[in-house]
Amino acid sequence: MMIALKTYLDDHKSAIDAALIGYLRQYSLTDRMLRPLEYAISAGGKRVRPILCISACIAVGGQARKAMPLACALEMIHTYSLIHDDLPALDNDDLRRGKPTCHIQFNEATAILAGDALLTMAFEVIAEAASDAPDPEAKLWLQILRSVSEAAGCRGMIEGQARDLGFEGIKLNRNDLESMHRLKTGALINASVHTGALIGMGSDQQIERLNDYAANIGLAFQVVDDILNVTGDASILGKAVGTDQSRQKNTYPALLGLEQSELYAAELIDRALLALEIFDKKADPLRAIARYILYRNR
Amino acid sequence: MMIALKTYLDDHKSAIDAALIGYLRQYSLTDRMLRPLEYAISAGGKRVRPILCISACIAVGGQARKAMPLACALEMIHTYSLIHDDLPALDNDDLRRGKPTCHIQFNEATAILAGDALLTMAFEVIAEAASDAPDPEAKLWLQILRSVSEAAGCRGMIEGQARDLGFEGIKLNRNDLESMHRLKTGALINASVHTGALIGMGSDQQIERLNDYAANIGLAFQVVDDILNVTGDASILGKAVGTDQSRQKNTYPALLGLEQSELYAAELIDRALLALEIFDKKADPLRAIARYILYRNR
Repeated sequence: MMIALKTYLDDHKSAIDAALIGYLRQYSLTDRMLRPLEYAISAGGKRVRPILCISACIAVGGQARKAMPLACALEMIHTYSLIHDDLPALDNDDLRRGKPTCHIQFNEATAILAGDALLTMAFEVIAEAASDAPDPEAKLWLQILRSVSEAAGCRGMIEGQARDLGFEGIKLNRNDLESMHRLKTGALINASVHTGALIGMGSDQQIERLNDYAANIGLAFQVVDDILNVTGDASILGKAVGTDQSRQKNTYPALLGLEQSELYAAELIDRALLALEIFDKKADPLRAIARYILYRNR
Repeated sequence: MMIALKTYLDDHKSAIDAALIGYLRQYSLTDRMLRPLEYAISAGGKRVRPILCISACIAVGGQARKAMPLACALEMIHTYSLIHDDLPALDNDDLRRGKPTCHIQFNEATAILAGDALLTMAFEVIAEAASDAPDPEAKLWLQILRSVSEAAGCRGMIEGQARDLGFEGIKLNRNDLESMHRLKTGALINASVHTGALIGMGSDQQIERLNDYAANIGLAFQVVDDILNVTGDASILGKAVGTDQSRQKNTYPALLGLEQSELYAAELIDRALLALEIFDKKADPLRAIARYILYRNR
């Protein structure tokens, strides 16, 4: 990883981590919910979605500070989805990023509530930031609310998760696999970039290009994830490898083979970089993130 | 029940039911999620929260039609909370309103996702209604968003649910029992009345009185619920009775005795009616609902 990107990611990650903990403490009445929420949110995520949100805001000329509440809301939604996905009735995972998952560390009831709490809190954070914004920005925040809620809902992440569950053991074609991923992980990544550009007051053309960028890196992210489940090192990834194959999960390596999957990931990243052509150097972090997706954890 | 109230409730219930199904079909991409969502939302609820929301809007001089999206969002949040509360890891209930609960009818994974979907959809519905509203109302909708998200979150319903779980088997004093209920069921009932009054453009004084009304009926509702679990008829209630005692749940009858509990419920309803004194006959439905709470299902 380039030193400049590493510093950029580390700095933003620290700021996001601090802001997230601040929100949890502000919105939790007692330790009862605060402890599992802090545990889940501090589990060492890379903060991909909030960093994309802030970077998209910067790319269109906005200030990182303005995107921070939104960035935190997106990470809360992502974290809630992981907590619920890990539950015994869903993926039944005991480990996440090398640590016991929420229902193992606490219990199932707490994990279900903690997920519900984070999803709800995301909208509390958006509501608060929107209420504090100057009046003319109220409409903009409603657009953001719409984009985020749609991405997280039945026309986005939840439908993707439901398809993923329903597809286990069924062999998919490439189209079905792709549309599942566009919903399950792509929708929230798209919303992160899209709403970051909205809060940064990007032009229609900028927003269109950034949507294109997001769609390509979102899919690339998933393809690389599938590849790492085959070739990765469990101690670096912080989760078990080889699990997709044993669960007969539909993956790109299973469908295309490993080599074609790697070529496809590279092609998606090329398309993402092409979409950024109209931007100046303020989009360099987005460019670096796109390249980093290809080479992470190797 | 007075005939007039019955007609009022039936008419609004039908309109709410139709609007809810309309939203589910609009926001669900495929049958995969639509079927469990329709099942859960059609399970025969009395639509207390949406009717309160619409009635509060009417009481301050607003039009019922304007409150409908909000009313549906509130019912979605209520329904999600029931689906998740019924899960094996939480209350482990097999029946709800005389029908198999969502995880029994489908499976646990589907029930978790369906709950997540309804919570998210509530915010999609609010976002859509807010975007469609005239510009000057944008700030009002952000206030509504804030009120609803706070009521559903860690400073409301979720903290209440977490306390309820943590308190099972521990004997509570009246204060702790009351604050648990104010969070678990009171917060969303308050938000229903409060946001209904907001969308109806109620004055500060009207809103203050309605908040007082809501706090009292919310608690009365819970006290009567506890009483019915002791004295009720399972076939009319559509759920098992006597379960609180066998689970050593903290209830008003257990704490105060049955007679004192009935007196307390009546006192709360008196207070609620007193709070409505400043309103004209447009608040008659709210008055009738308060009285109905005391006598439901007997």
